[in-house]
Amino acid sequence: MTEQLNVQQMADRLCAAEDILILCHKNPDGDTVGCASALCYALEALDKNAAVLCSDPIPHRYGCTAARMFKGDFEPRTVVAVDVASIQLFGENNGMPRYTRHVDLCIDHHAGNTGYADFTLLDGHAAAAAELLYDVILAMGVELTRQIANCLYTGLSTDTGCFRFSSTTAKTHLIAAKLIEAGADLEELNTLLFETKPRQRMEAERIARNHLEYHLDGRCALIYLTRDEIEASGVDPADLEELTSLPISIEGVQVGLTLRQQPGGSYRISVRTAKGVDACAIARRLGGGGHNRAAGCELLGNLDNAKNAILAEVEAELNALRDAAQEEG
Amino acid sequence: MTEQLNVQQMADRLCAAEDILILCHKNPDGDTVGCASALCYALEALDKNAAVLCSDPIPHRYGCTAARMFKGDFEPRTVVAVDVASIQLFGENNGMPRYTRHVDLCIDHHAGNTGYADFTLLDGHAAAAAELLYDVILAMGVELTRQIANCLYTGLSTDTGCFRFSSTTAKTHLIAAKLIEAGADLEELNTLLFETKPRQRMEAERIARNHLEYHLDGRCALIYLTRDEIEASGVDPADLEELTSLPISIEGVQVGLTLRQQPGGSYRISVRTAKGVDACAIARRLGGGGHNRAAGCELLGNLDNAKNAILAEVEAELNALRDAAQEEG
Repeated sequence: MTEQLNVQQMADRLCAAEDILILCHKNPDGDTVGCASALCYALEALDKNAAVLCSDPIPHRYGCTAARMFKGDFEPRTVVAVDVASIQLFGENNGMPRYTRHVDLCIDHHAGNTGYADFTLLDGHAAAAAELLYDVILAMGVELTRQIANCLYTGLSTDTGCFRFSSTTAKTHLIAAKLIEAGADLEELNTLLFETKPRQRMEAERIARNHLEYHLDGRCALIYLTRDEIEASGVDPADLEELTSLPISIEGVQVGLTLRQQPGGSYRISVRTAKGVDACAIARRLGGGGHNRAAGCELLGNLDNAKNAILAEVEAELNALRDAAQEEG
Repeated sequence: MTEQLNVQQMADRLCAAEDILILCHKNPDGDTVGCASALCYALEALDKNAAVLCSDPIPHRYGCTAARMFKGDFEPRTVVAVDVASIQLFGENNGMPRYTRHVDLCIDHHAGNTGYADFTLLDGHAAAAAELLYDVILAMGVELTRQIANCLYTGLSTDTGCFRFSSTTAKTHLIAAKLIEAGADLEELNTLLFETKPRQRMEAERIARNHLEYHLDGRCALIYLTRDEIEASGVDPADLEELTSLPISIEGVQVGLTLRQQPGGSYRISVRTAKGVDACAIARRLGGGGHNRAAGCELLGNLDNAKNAILAEVEAELNALRDAAQEEG
């Protein structure tokens, strides 16, 4: 059972800590990497020994945040997790299991955080963990350097789709303003984070767009990539995450599906929905889960089986919604 | 010769005006439409008679800003232009020339504003005219209603590519925060402005991506759409504007070219460049023009001729840059 802390309490515990290991979640995104690096720089500014550990390599485009990575060169006395909702999300590589047996502190914005740490600062309404880190670092009395601002901007902007997602609030923009005033390299970061894509990523997207299909009278759009296509394009599978927002971006589409074949042959299905349609309910029927507007599941079998299975659940959900609306009307 | 005003002076003149006609630029974007509507609502809040006029129809996605449109139903005593850099940009339709013979006030953020109005509030560093309108409306003593906030958010977000472009500043984000606090319908607006595309637009993009070519050792990327393809896709040509940012978004590309065949058969070429490469210099060699990072020109002849002509100029510019760098080195 974890104890919930407020911002100042978390800051005080960090200020009292020594030899701090900061943990990211696996398949690291800009928020976990940006927050971990920002916290590492903040702790170093207080003359503390700190380093970051992640189960997977840090993607190139988050490189400019890169704080000191942990090489097993000290024995951690305090373990802090940032943007990690559950133990399972730490991953297994880089000796991770050794350090996740006991997590002291956790700073997170996932409402479903399982409370695995001794002490947790949790705000499910924050658009990014970087919003919480911003408050914590100020409460630690650390100056907002350009380096820290770059890290926090990386987290804030990537987790909000550059201020587009519905999670964005006035506070998100206020913090962005403060980070820019602190010297964040806005132009360089935005180019790197949002405007530059590898050729291989372009090629994979081209193939996926050629596979675009409409189903259920245009209420559902679907794209897919087979393993062979992913490999032929040469794309880093981590770079395909953003593709999942493509089908739902089409006018009139209520459910957008992206099917990506995994190395083992199964299909990972990403479900994105328009307001009022529960993505999680659809994914849950097939053993998956997630959030209200973004969820996923994984299905064994070939492409046609995967398509048919998910489309049947999408149809059931959309029909249930329609029936409910008719009863109300 | 125009007289430059500061924010309070412009606000005072607007508060003293009666029967106000607000003019947008032709091919209206979110900034000119959002600003014109916001100003119209603000003047109406002061019990004034005001309406908006544009040479071209207001695109559907800016519909939620739509203030009262001018129907020739009153004789304007004050004419105000928002986000219009020169007389030529007013256009010719809807009886526009009758009202642009004498423009009293102009609020703009284009550094190259020609000073056609009697009095001008100009800030070439503002990311959007909406930043200026925000200040002006507050200086008019008008309450920031949800409606006005929606209009200004439309201008602010569209002119900055949703806070991605290098023109974005801390002030841009601070104003965004204030607009959200004033009740701007963030989720609805972002979906409408940035996340929903017609099927026809998706189809045109699919075709263009299948035409992606790399030239000059990958330093230049090119896409094109013929007139037949544009027509077959059914896309509204105005919806293709955004495609021009596609080729330059590829890693390693210094010049991105988008060729769109026009109804008359000629090719309109959009030139987008990475930092340090002058798009305008390239376009100017072929009789075009524009800004430092975004320019364009139009070429007669078939696709191959157009491609060869523009690629020759891109090569000349990139080689000149390389030679200059070598001389410096």
